[in-house]
This record gives sequence, C-alpha cells and structure tokens, in this order.
Amino acid sequence: MTQRARNEFFVALCLAIVTSFATPALAYDGTVKKEVFTMPSYTAVNGKTIKNVRIGYESYGTLSAAKDNVILICHFFSGTSHAAGKYKPEDAAPGYWDAIIGSGKAIDTDKYFVISSDNLVNLNAKDPNVTTTGPATVNPDTGKAYGLTFPIVSLRDFVNVQKALLDSLGIKKLAAVAGASGGGILAVEWSAAYPDMVERVISAIAPGLEIDAYGVEMLNMWNTPITMDPKWNNGDYYGRDEPMEGVAQSLKLVILSSSGYGGVEKRFGRKWAAEDKDPGAAIGNLYAIEDGLYKAAAARAKAVDANHFLYTSRANQLFSVAAEAKKIKAKFLFVPAKSDLVFPPWMARRSADVLRAQGNSVEIFEIDGDSGHYDGLFQISQASTAIRNLLAR
Amino acid sequence: MTQRARNEFFVALCLAIVTSFATPALAYDGTVKKEVFTMPSYTAVNGKTIKNVRIGYESYGTLSAAKDNVILICHFFSGTSHAAGKYKPEDAAPGYWDAIIGSGKAIDTDKYFVISSDNLVNLNAKDPNVTTTGPATVNPDTGKAYGLTFPIVSLRDFVNVQKALLDSLGIKKLAAVAGASGGGILAVEWSAAYPDMVERVISAIAPGLEIDAYGVEMLNMWNTPITMDPKWNNGDYYGRDEPMEGVAQSLKLVILSSSGYGGVEKRFGRKWAAEDKDPGAAIGNLYAIEDGLYKAAAARAKAVDANHFLYTSRANQLFSVAAEAKKIKAKFLFVPAKSDLVFPPWMARRSADVLRAQGNSVEIFEIDGDSGHYDGLFQISQASTAIRNLLAR
Repeated sequence: MTQRARNEFFVALCLAIVTSFATPALAYDGTVKKEVFTMPSYTAVNGKTIKNVRIGYESYGTLSAAKDNVILICHFFSGTSHAAGKYKPEDAAPGYWDAIIGSGKAIDTDKYFVISSDNLVNLNAKDPNVTTTGPATVNPDTGKAYGLTFPIVSLRDFVNVQKALLDSLGIKKLAAVAGASGGGILAVEWSAAYPDMVERVISAIAPGLEIDAYGVEMLNMWNTPITMDPKWNNGDYYGRDEPMEGVAQSLKLVILSSSGYGGVEKRFGRKWAAEDKDPGAAIGNLYAIEDGLYKAAAARAKAVDANHFLYTSRANQLFSVAAEAKKIKAKFLFVPAKSDLVFPPWMARRSADVLRAQGNSVEIFEIDGDSGHYDGLFQISQASTAIRNLLAR
Repeated sequence: MTQRARNEFFVALCLAIVTSFATPALAYDGTVKKEVFTMPSYTAVNGKTIKNVRIGYESYGTLSAAKDNVILICHFFSGTSHAAGKYKPEDAAPGYWDAIIGSGKAIDTDKYFVISSDNLVNLNAKDPNVTTTGPATVNPDTGKAYGLTFPIVSLRDFVNVQKALLDSLGIKKLAAVAGASGGGILAVEWSAAYPDMVERVISAIAPGLEIDAYGVEMLNMWNTPITMDPKWNNGDYYGRDEPMEGVAQSLKLVILSSSGYGGVEKRFGRKWAAEDKDPGAAIGNLYAIEDGLYKAAAARAKAVDANHFLYTSRANQLFSVAAEAKKIKAKFLFVPAKSDLVFPPWMARRSADVLRAQGNSVEIFEIDGDSGHYDGLFQISQASTAIRNLLAR
C-alpha cells in the first residue's frame, strides 16, 4: 500500500466510522423529538401584541448545509405537528401523514428536511406533546389565562410565527409547503404571504383560495355545542369545571362533517348502540353511529381547550387570499378527495382554474374513496406519485 | 222553441245557475280551511296507546263522488300541512308547494282532491294553525304535558293516523302520495304500509327506501343544541322557561344542512354581519351568514316545541322499508335535487334500481339548482311535467 493509498484508506475509514456513528443520529429513523420555539413578542395582523409566544415543532430528515431542502408541513383543524414517525417506539400509531413522509416515501426524508409545527391556538392545548399559545395560556401581565382577552389571530399570524421559527433556523426557501384540510389552507396562505419563499404547495382536502359562506357557517355549526355549554361561561372557565361536554359535542360534529356516507355506512349501518335497546322504544336508546361518534369525540375532548377550538374556527373563517392570488408564484398540487363533504373537489378545481389562468403550474390529483374528508388523511398514499412529480417539477 | 227545447234550455239554465253558485263554494280557489281529525285512542307500532289523538288537515279541490281522485301530501321535517293556498287572502305567502298544487297546475285541483295533514309530534306545536299530538300535549290521565313519557312514534304511526283520517272520509285509494324531504320519506313509508291503497308515489329530495348511518347521525347532530340547552331539562320544561335557544340553534343546523353552497354564497358571500364589526377584531363579531341563519332560525323557533323536534328526528331515524320493498306496488317518481347535501341524488338512484329490479315503474327527475335541499321546495315547479306524466301513467 503506497502512502497515498494508505492516506486514502485512512480517510475512507474515518468517513466510514463518522458515517456509521453519524447516520443513525442525523438521519430520520422514525423517532421524533418535539422541540419548542419561543418569540419574546409577536404583533398580530390586527395590531395586537402577544408576549412570550411559544409553539412546538418536530422534524424528520436532515437539513442540508445550504438549507435548501426544506418542506414545511401544516396541520389540520384538530391536528398537531405530529405528521410522521413516533415519539416513542411503543406509540400506538405514527403521525397522521406517515404514509407519505419518511425514508423512500413520497416526501423523502433521505432527501428533504421536513419540519412541522403546532399552530397558534392549537386545539390540543392539554396534550403534553403540544406547545401552543392562545386563550388557555397564562397572560404574563395578569398571571391568569387570557380567555377571550386573547387577540383574534388569523392564518396569516399562524404563518408569521412559523416564518419566525424558520428564520431562527436560517431557512430562507421552502421546496414545498404541504398540509391537509386546515393545513392545506395554511399552505395556500403561505404561498400568498411569502410568494418568493414558497416554491411549491401541496394542498390536500382544502377549499382553494378562500373559504366561502357555506364553510364559514360550517365552522359556526361546529362551535355551537361549545357556546351552548353553560360551563363555557363566555370563555371564562379556567381554574373551574371546564365545558368538556360542549367540546365533545363540537368534536362529534367535526367527525360527522369529516366522514363520508359510504365509510360510516360500512362501519355502523343501521345497527343499534346496544342489542337490547331499541331506538323505537325510548328516546334515550341510540343507534350505533350516535354512540360511536360521541364516544370517539369524548375521548379526544380531554386534550382540547374550548376557546382554542373557537379561535381556530375563527382563523379559518377569516381565510381568503382571493384578492392576493396574483402575488402567488408557487407550483401547485391540489389533492381533493372524491367523497369529501367539507371541501368537495369542485372547490380545488375552481381555484386551479384561477391560478392556471394567471400562469401558475397547477396539477390536481383526486383521492378515490368513500370516507369523505378523512380520505385526505388516511388515503393520502394514493397521491404519492403526484407528490413526487410535483417535487421533481 | 219546442217544449223539448224549452225543457233542455231550462235544465241547462238550472245547471248554469247551480254551477255558478256551486263552483266557488266547492272548487279550490286558493283559500284553505284547517280542519281537525280526532281519534279517541291510537295504539302505536311499539304497543303503546295514546288517547285523544288529534291532527290538523286541509284540502284543495273536490272529492269526487266515487272518492277516487285523492292525492295525499305529506309534510317535511319542520313543515306543516300547509302545502298550498292561503288561510287568509292577506297571508304573506301560500303553502310551500303552491307552485305545483292548484287549478291547472301539475297536481291539478280541478281534477284531484288533494289532502294534507299535520304529522304526529309536528315540530310547530305552538303554531295556531297546527294541530298535533306529542310530548307537548296534555296527557288526559295526568292533566300534565307528556314530556318524554310520550311514546316513541314511528313514520308507520304517522301513516296509520293519516290512514284513519282517510278512512273517516271514506277514501280507500290514493292516486298518489307525495311529499318533499321528510314528506317524501313518509310517502315511501305509505307505499310499504298500504301497498294496495297507494297507486303512485312522488318522493322529492328523499333518501329512497331507508335512512342510512350518515342520515341517522345528521338527525342526531340537529338534536344536539336542544339537548345541550340546560332549559331542556331532560324534556321536562312545560310550564317553565322553555329551551328556546336550543331550538333556535337546532333549527340553524337544519337550515345549513338544507342549504346549498351556491345559494348561500350568492346571498351572503364573505360579508360581515355589521360593517363596523370585523370578525378579525373580536370573537363576537360575526359573518353575515352566521347572523342571518341564526336570526332566521330564532324567528321560526317561536312556534317549535323542543321535544317534538327530538321525536320527529327519532321517527325519521327509524325509517327503513328496505326489508319490505317487495310489498310495494306503486309507480314511483323520485325528484332529487342536484345540489342537495342532505339526500343527494345518488340515494334516489340507488333505490330506483332496487324498485325497478323487482318490477316497479320508476322515473327520476333531477331538479337543477344550487340551493341544495331547499330546491325540493322552492324549485319544485321544474318537476311539473314529470309529475303530470306520472299521474297519467
């Protein structure tokens, strides 16, 4: 072995050793760590200032030296940052879009640094894995929870806080912003807010460039059980008995809206909740779907703050970038779901027409299925090739 | 003039005089009188007996001597017997299907005797024009309102009480049973309950042969604000402050479900409820649709009893004649509405396939429009030719 050969061998050995130690530590192996980003102060679009803003985030994959391989994932209405992987190996399920985020998957963590954050006023304020700032947060000026004194925040504010998080990591470009439902809306908001930063948008089961009247009222409908609950007490319930029944009933309406005819028919049909309790015999005897959806909602309600629910609704009601569409530069992939009853596919097609007419590159991939809005979460792998194609464009 | 000619002239003159007096009195001129039908006792399908059952009814046109020209109209979920005409000339509007019921209209009152009744447990128990029996009725055994001690009644019970009304008038055949939404469901129930009596069914904006899981839960959703209202008090509120807010909020959900995307977009769009109250500034500032639908619902709530709402929901949840379909002999016209979000057109098509496969004559006419379920009420005149054709078959 010549000296040069020996030197090359040594370098190769060192690289191999470094790599053998570094790879498991740096690359995404499906285990996820939740981090917290803090801003001492943030001034919302409506001019109100919020001190000590904190949001949680997590990432999958490795940030390149040039910081040019970043994909931001935005979460849905009742979701969290947990889009992929597991916090602990024994977790029952990985994050909601794990089917498309990971090594070798459509959003390939061998190539991309994927980052996902909790929104402001995230519903799941009581989930230990969630960090958010909203009405349930203690106002540092008073030492008490804000309640309805918390300023209204819009999706633009959600974006601005995420932007500050990305700034703190030195990230200046996003290869894509992606999300489902409220996350797909937020991705579109991003493309209008920071058109030079967002190269691509993947907007799944979302309404395109704005929420229209029907969507505004659907959000109002979802709020109704919370505001009907006397324990809500006009938003002033911190330190007391909380409006858990209202939250459960509101989540029940979200679950129904998000379901599809065929999906719930297969699961529940016209079965009774209990074999010996005929709904034809007493008003308290229920069908299986009534009992099932309520119980699913009540289980989720434990982590949810009622005011955060109302604030997230309002942020979504405020969504319209129709007047700013001309600023948008991103390439788009809309991923509607065929049986979606919240944002049916014609909404994406309508906005695709607007964006194409002004010169944006827009593709649409429609998820097939009968589970409604949920198909945008649980059938998203159908869109894998369309997502790969967008990222290659 | 011969004696014979004179006699013929005299007969003709007499007939002309009789007709000139009789026509305005006998034929339907658009003015409607509400009548009341009473049964001393009725035993429901579930075996429970109800004393002194009373329902209101009205009719348009003239019953033929052979009593063979009868069309029964069944009302929708929140409706009443008032399908056509006006109670008083100064009424703001005629009955809900006046566009197709009247002299020379699709359901021609020059030819048919059209009869329409209030259902058992009709929502509008406090409407002076409505007579119904349900939880708000005073139980003759106790001298107090039944509340939730009123037996559960099914659509078969609604039919049986209407059948007793028709029996009391000597009517043994129905040229057609027709209705929209809950009324279209009841018309199908009639065809299975009394297959030899029902010659034709006109079932508009209805789900066909049964309500499936999604529909069962939509009814549950509509109930939720009532049962969330503390004044509902598990159904025991008679003689006290009634759960009017719950009723208003429940009706708001019915109105949203019954609307179509396009209809509410044209009417409300993204307008605010008040020009100086930006929804981005305070959680209490609303969009126009939120304010508008709530106010429309609150106005209607005054006539509505909360328990009657829940009982009508349950009666509809119980609807399934799928297992009895083979008994049905009637000719069918299904009239779905293209933009209906409660019972979309594929539901009618699915049941049409079942009925055709067993040999029934079935036509489908789809109403075009963007106002959803409401198009089955307000755009029904589109189906006029299809209705005439059915009645001629």
